[in-house]
Amino acid sequence: MNVVVVGSGSWGTALAIKSVLAGNTTTLYCRRPEFAKQLAEDLENKEYLPGVTLPKELLYSSDLATCINAADIVLMVTPSVHVRTSLESLKPYAHKEQSYILCSKGVERTTGKLLTTVMREVLGPVGCNLAVLSGPNHAEEIGRDLPAASVLSTENLEVATMLQKTLCSQNFRIYANTDITGVELAGATKNIIALAAGIVDGLKLGDNCKALLLTRGLHEMTRFGVALGAQKETYAGLAGMGDLIATCMSPHGRNRAAGQQLADGKTMDYIINHTNMVVEGFFATDIVYKMACEHHIEMPITKALYEVLYEEKSPALALAELMGRDIKIEVS
Amino acid sequence: MNVVVVGSGSWGTALAIKSVLAGNTTTLYCRRPEFAKQLAEDLENKEYLPGVTLPKELLYSSDLATCINAADIVLMVTPSVHVRTSLESLKPYAHKEQSYILCSKGVERTTGKLLTTVMREVLGPVGCNLAVLSGPNHAEEIGRDLPAASVLSTENLEVATMLQKTLCSQNFRIYANTDITGVELAGATKNIIALAAGIVDGLKLGDNCKALLLTRGLHEMTRFGVALGAQKETYAGLAGMGDLIATCMSPHGRNRAAGQQLADGKTMDYIINHTNMVVEGFFATDIVYKMACEHHIEMPITKALYEVLYEEKSPALALAELMGRDIKIEVS
Repeated sequence: MNVVVVGSGSWGTALAIKSVLAGNTTTLYCRRPEFAKQLAEDLENKEYLPGVTLPKELLYSSDLATCINAADIVLMVTPSVHVRTSLESLKPYAHKEQSYILCSKGVERTTGKLLTTVMREVLGPVGCNLAVLSGPNHAEEIGRDLPAASVLSTENLEVATMLQKTLCSQNFRIYANTDITGVELAGATKNIIALAAGIVDGLKLGDNCKALLLTRGLHEMTRFGVALGAQKETYAGLAGMGDLIATCMSPHGRNRAAGQQLADGKTMDYIINHTNMVVEGFFATDIVYKMACEHHIEMPITKALYEVLYEEKSPALALAELMGRDIKIEVS
Repeated sequence: MNVVVVGSGSWGTALAIKSVLAGNTTTLYCRRPEFAKQLAEDLENKEYLPGVTLPKELLYSSDLATCINAADIVLMVTPSVHVRTSLESLKPYAHKEQSYILCSKGVERTTGKLLTTVMREVLGPVGCNLAVLSGPNHAEEIGRDLPAASVLSTENLEVATMLQKTLCSQNFRIYANTDITGVELAGATKNIIALAAGIVDGLKLGDNCKALLLTRGLHEMTRFGVALGAQKETYAGLAGMGDLIATCMSPHGRNRAAGQQLADGKTMDYIINHTNMVVEGFFATDIVYKMACEHHIEMPITKALYEVLYEEKSPALALAELMGRDIKIEVS
């Protein structure tokens, strides 16, 4: 297959490597021609995935028309904030026989829309073979070919199976799934719990408390998803539980790290103004909390975090209130 | 309520502290009179829970008859290997109005029986109010009153609710559940996945791989439990996912640590002979693998670990075989 990866950050580069390992003719599209040239010369993405040698079969291009025209499969791996504009630029060259796989996570900040909604809006009928890839996938580890797995979700199981076979390789297992809504919502809402996990770390509350947070956090992520049409089982899988664990446990996660700063007494505005990190969880908490209120979905952790972020409640008080809620039956 | 804790190790001591905090008249039963005296003098269990001050309201006794006679609730917190003999010694003083809560995890090594089965065998009709407490609960953290939660399971929801209210306190949230089989099986089988998690750590396979292991591990734990009559939802809760995360993530877990030694090339026999650790996962792997074969339950991780432990397969080869299995649909 001819695979084009749009987005040459760490995750795009790692996925391009995996696509080559899976036996595909693979092109990494770089917006800047000089960056494409640099990658081809260095055989390394020094800026975003340093220390990983790029396979000599990988191709680089900044000619969007030629790339997209020739592609069977397009992986969309730009930051969530650029997904709409990237799609608008490639649309003139897109055609219906292609599959578009969303590999970015999050929601469109200005509209609160899911990224697949943005894809459907921009691509229209051309985007009929739309898929989402998600799972516990730190790019640095995937780039180094450490064993990992992911979930590939499309509405059509036949397309899912084809894409699964095309992208699978020895150390990158791909499971097929047909619940696009669940896979995408899980990827967006886990950042809320990751922020809370950072607070637990920052307050030194221990492994019991963190395991409690992840378990109850997945419960409310699931409740939210199911209310919006997702399947419960998706949350028990790699795009739900798996991604949540990797995001909340890794010392490198941006959302978890931001939570740790909140525990240290920094405010959200301070964190936004004093780092160049994009903390998706900040926006997700606002959007998800408001949607939960509107749809009457019980999300106590999201509510507590919303109060910490947007109403200046102290993390310690928010936690004490969470622990003091009415005791109840675990599965309601 | 009058609560008696049988077993004065780290977990028994931590639970006794929690019971005092919840407002109960609480006695920590110690088999050795001199140990009971020592605890009362030191107000610290220097041997098993050092650094934690015992509340002055906590009582100590080595008079089993008086303790058990007066108890409304008995917490069984002896090591799994001593559960049967402990129950046999207290049985003459037990009566039907009491509740017996199993707080130990594992299976009886000599028979492969679940500990609740052992309890039912020994106590007979006297053990009609039988419950199981389980969750992500490292004793050291509970003893220091860090926030945590647990699941209390009985067949009778009214009894569950009563016990839940009796043992709950600000930093120890208890959820009620009626699936004893699920709660107990989850607590026994998670040690298998913890051994595998130690191997992943030892081989430095990264966070993605560990999140993958935990997610797929919980899937096969669930499959096993459901085949034996457990409820799927229990595994998504604190006794399943929660306990699994805490056990596999904490640097202190014995099963995880043993897995790390396996990755370093040590054999199971070497680990058993050169440490005084009881590694429950070694026995659980043997028992569960054989039961899974007998009942035709697919458990690829347990099978791989069985081959590493009992058939001298190298951990790296076992992993490569796991990653190379047929790709499939995530939820089957």
